[in-house]
Amino acid sequence: MAKKFNFAVKVYYEDTDTGGVVYYANYLKFLERARSEAIYSLGFTNLDLLKYHGVLLIVKSCNIEYKKPAKFEDKLDIVSEISSFTKTSFVMKQSILRNNELISIADIQLVAVDKNGKPSKIPEKLKIALES
Amino acid sequence: MAKKFNFAVKVYYEDTDTGGVVYYANYLKFLERARSEAIYSLGFTNLDLLKYHGVLLIVKSCNIEYKKPAKFEDKLDIVSEISSFTKTSFVMKQSILRNNELISIADIQLVAVDKNGKPSKIPEKLKIALES
Amino acid sequence: MAKKFNFAVKVYYEDTDTGGVVYYANYLKFLERARSEAIYSLGFTNLDLLKYHGVLLIVKSCNIEYKKPAKFEDKLDIVSEISSFTKTSFVMKQSILRNNELISIADIQLVAVDKNGKPSKIPEKLKIALES
Amino acid sequence: MAKKFNFAVKVYYEDTDTGGVVYYANYLKFLERARSEAIYSLGFTNLDLLKYHGVLLIVKSCNIEYKKPAKFEDKLDIVSEISSFTKTSFVMKQSILRNNELISIADIQLVAVDKNGKPSKIPEKLKIALES
Repeated sequence: MAKKFNFAVKVYYEDTDTGGVVYYANYLKFLERARSEAIYSLGFTNLDLLKYHGVLLIVKSCNIEYKKPAKFEDKLDIVSEISSFTKTSFVMKQSILRNNELISIADIQLVAVDKNGKPSKIPEKLKIALES
Repeated sequence: MAKKFNFAVKVYYEDTDTGGVVYYANYLKFLERARSEAIYSLGFTNLDLLKYHGVLLIVKSCNIEYKKPAKFEDKLDIVSEISSFTKTSFVMKQSILRNNELISIADIQLVAVDKNGKPSKIPEKLKIALES
Repeated sequence: MAKKFNFAVKVYYEDTDTGGVVYYANYLKFLERARSEAIYSLGFTNLDLLKYHGVLLIVKSCNIEYKKPAKFEDKLDIVSEISSFTKTSFVMKQSILRNNELISIADIQLVAVDKNGKPSKIPEKLKIALES
Repeated sequence: MAKKFNFAVKVYYEDTDTGGVVYYANYLKFLERARSEAIYSLGFTNLDLLKYHGVLLIVKSCNIEYKKPAKFEDKLDIVSEISSFTKTSFVMKQSILRNNELISIADIQLVAVDKNGKPSKIPEKLKIALES
């Protein structure tokens, strides 16, 4: 069973738009924060992955559905889990919830690349940590 | 044949991240600007659609693939066209190009909703303008 | 002696630019989050101030000095305190620190306005809470 | 008499917040776009300044007053002019206008730094171009 990562986010003015809801691009910021925190919780940082393992995790595709609008001052929970793996990439399924109501759901494909942007093997230690 | 809308964007500091490329969420800002300009080019504004037609166009889903990174000070072209229609929604296919190189490609599903967020018929005048 | 409010912020990809540092406008987002959290810590929310007291706190001026650049994955502390008060406005002095190093320092003038944007008395309960 | 630089900006969803106006940090994005366009209009780019002259222009301080709120779908004009010079820095006075109404006014201090962040002489060619 896949490991689940939890991350909490609060909606500030910067996240909203004139419609009174979170601007559609800003959910992707929440998702990225949650992914970075997942990496941190496993004992890695993005900077260390680059420095010691020579890889950067970049987003290759994003498929997001907006179910309900999140609003100013909402408290949101983001649940992330890995749904598939290849040698150089993985897909993270990320849900944004308010209490237990589903706000948005996304599949994010991440690829490990080297400094020149070429696909690169996911560092073994990271892969083990993500799967365990 | 579907009408094509063209929009040009320049990459400023605000759009980039420490990786030296456009931050993945910020492409969605470019796409939204292009959609707003498409609306304007047809003689509508988002404010008028709400005021005179009682509808707001909201994003229901976004499916984006990142093919190549866009960089600081790049000049990008966004080509948008409608790929399908229902009574209350439509899908816009949007490509981001640098010269003729494909940077990203996205399918954005937009839904017309009323002030209470309920799906609403796309105003006939807008539908005709989008299709003609 | 003025009450001090503390707030912690982490620097994510979204906050940085191609220079490898936090983009200058994004510090203002951190400052706003810290001010909102100060309000929350006193038992208020921005939405409640509007709903029950008919006021909105808006920024009238911002004077910020950038001393050192904050970087990707930095952990920052924001210390906020009120430095002066009038009936309808107050100035918040906000410092951004990394460990004990000063990153930025700002004076933000906030004005209470009613729904029409006219200056309005700061609600007595909020004023007392901010000063106590 | 100082040279004036003009730049036009439109307010999109991304720029606004739940208050129905432009979010206070986002005006700084408009100002930065206007400064980059001023640089471009003189035949320079930020990338070239770094590559050929070894300097980066960074913001040292920003002093901005918010006079009137800008709103969704507003068309704004930004007028920028240099108000003072030293060997390594200059101050730009930037006004944001809607029609001829003043929305915001800012003094931005910019410093030329080298790759290590040390103050550096403003390239002579750029200085001449900015003053002429």
